[in-house]
Amino acid sequence: MSEVTVADVERAARRIAGRVRRTPVVEGPPGLVYKLEFLQHAGSFKARGAFNRILAAREAGEPGPAGVIAASGGNHGLAVAYAARALGVRAEIFVPEVTGPVKVGGLRDLGAHVTRTGAVYSDALLASRKRAAESGALEIHAYDHPHVIAGQGTLGAELLEQTGGVDTVLVAVGGGGLIGGVTLAVAGRAKVVAVEPRLCPTLHEALAAGRPVDVPVGGVAADALGATRLGELAFSIVRDRVESVLVEDDAIAEARRELWRTHRIAVEPAGATALAAVTAGAYTPAPGERVAVILCGANTDPATLLA
Amino acid sequence: MSEVTVADVERAARRIAGRVRRTPVVEGPPGLVYKLEFLQHAGSFKARGAFNRILAAREAGEPGPAGVIAASGGNHGLAVAYAARALGVRAEIFVPEVTGPVKVGGLRDLGAHVTRTGAVYSDALLASRKRAAESGALEIHAYDHPHVIAGQGTLGAELLEQTGGVDTVLVAVGGGGLIGGVTLAVAGRAKVVAVEPRLCPTLHEALAAGRPVDVPVGGVAADALGATRLGELAFSIVRDRVESVLVEDDAIAEARRELWRTHRIAVEPAGATALAAVTAGAYTPAPGERVAVILCGANTDPATLLA
Repeated sequence: MSEVTVADVERAARRIAGRVRRTPVVEGPPGLVYKLEFLQHAGSFKARGAFNRILAAREAGEPGPAGVIAASGGNHGLAVAYAARALGVRAEIFVPEVTGPVKVGGLRDLGAHVTRTGAVYSDALLASRKRAAESGALEIHAYDHPHVIAGQGTLGAELLEQTGGVDTVLVAVGGGGLIGGVTLAVAGRAKVVAVEPRLCPTLHEALAAGRPVDVPVGGVAADALGATRLGELAFSIVRDRVESVLVEDDAIAEARRELWRTHRIAVEPAGATALAAVTAGAYTPAPGERVAVILCGANTDPATLLA
Repeated sequence: MSEVTVADVERAARRIAGRVRRTPVVEGPPGLVYKLEFLQHAGSFKARGAFNRILAAREAGEPGPAGVIAASGGNHGLAVAYAARALGVRAEIFVPEVTGPVKVGGLRDLGAHVTRTGAVYSDALLASRKRAAESGALEIHAYDHPHVIAGQGTLGAELLEQTGGVDTVLVAVGGGGLIGGVTLAVAGRAKVVAVEPRLCPTLHEALAAGRPVDVPVGGVAADALGATRLGELAFSIVRDRVESVLVEDDAIAEARRELWRTHRIAVEPAGATALAAVTAGAYTPAPGERVAVILCGANTDPATLLA
């Protein structure tokens, strides 16, 4: 299995500089700082991994005229479509049928060729792999690839620079790309807490089993966090290094409303999941502990926010 | 008439430090930087002026037990209510009847006593003045007071620090508190462009007449920018120092959608008005010109965003 190291994160940061936004931080309630990654191109952190993956492939002479192909519950697909368009590369995106109209419309607006197929993410992934084998397109996995993980990790390095250091970073987890990269980037400098909806406990169950296992997924954040199995690479990075907590869907919805009330920030459920760990008491910072909360995405219909 | 100077802005910055958020900036399209002031407490820049006004009054032994009183289309009222609660002061807020339920509900959630009266801002202002004369409460004008203007000006100083300097600052204008303060703060270091809806041309008409004049107001941003007459103090500051442009309501709505599309930022119409000057071509930056756009508020129902 390929290894990923902090040196890969540093290389990724140089590679994608100027392509992605340096998203700012803002103070939250006492002791908390919010990393506003929902301001990123295409509405989530996924642009970091997508640019790093395509740009690194280019250094090896890829992709060819068939372009790139990705499967995604939405955010990764949007990011690949965005990065491909920015780099002048053809993009084909496979999404499961549950993917909402806002995300599908966004993909098409970015010039991607979209195929809706399968009930869950893994079905769309399988179909995209078949297609890639036929077309010769470069497959861009949503999380389980060294360049994707290293790209997402640039967020962690940036966060430490911007804040002058924190004690703890709260990260929502889907397939593990973001938490894998961030864990590498902050290793030895901050603790990482993995936050998952109780209805999408992919990392939690992997830690319990000692290896990534298939997990049923559902609930309000499943369109972004509903990977049914943690990535192997991410697991190898985080297994002995992160604390895992679960939050209820109600807590996620409440954290989302809280962000609107206090900061006029309109994130998707996945983007409020890390904060829910604090607001619902699943993670209680110690007195004086400085905690960064990654608000990782906002690909949502804002009309649902106060519903 | 009281004078306001850049020294007042500097004093205000020291006075309100730790009370207001240092709102971050993020890069917009090439050449533009967005000041994310909608992240401020109570959803707009108005918290700066409110804190400075109350804290400065305290230095003079005010306010008494009757607390503070304000009239406001909404954002100033929310900010006064927020600041008063934070400082342990009673707040009474008068708003015109057009004020929407989100803003009135927000005022009550902040513990303010709310009176809805009159068709337009000036009616509510008159009623609040009568009430203040009876109760002895400290009147907090929405814009035409040196401490309010100086407080809003702290945004301009902060912006120059954060960006390392810009050539131009685009500011939406209602009664002139923000543009007055920002013009003082950046004098000699950046050009200020006043952006108003064509349907609320309060500063534009004041410049044309050579003095503040009553102006009919309406349109999508009137609840926040619909002061019927520019403040005298603001006029004395800006009259020879700013460029004035007007934008259509359609352009404001489009700028608002653009902010959501590209940054997942959900501002109110007033908060997108400064950007509309660029997106609609009312202000065209020169090649290489570095322009800061103040996104000044987000007290809105997010469901209206994509409507």
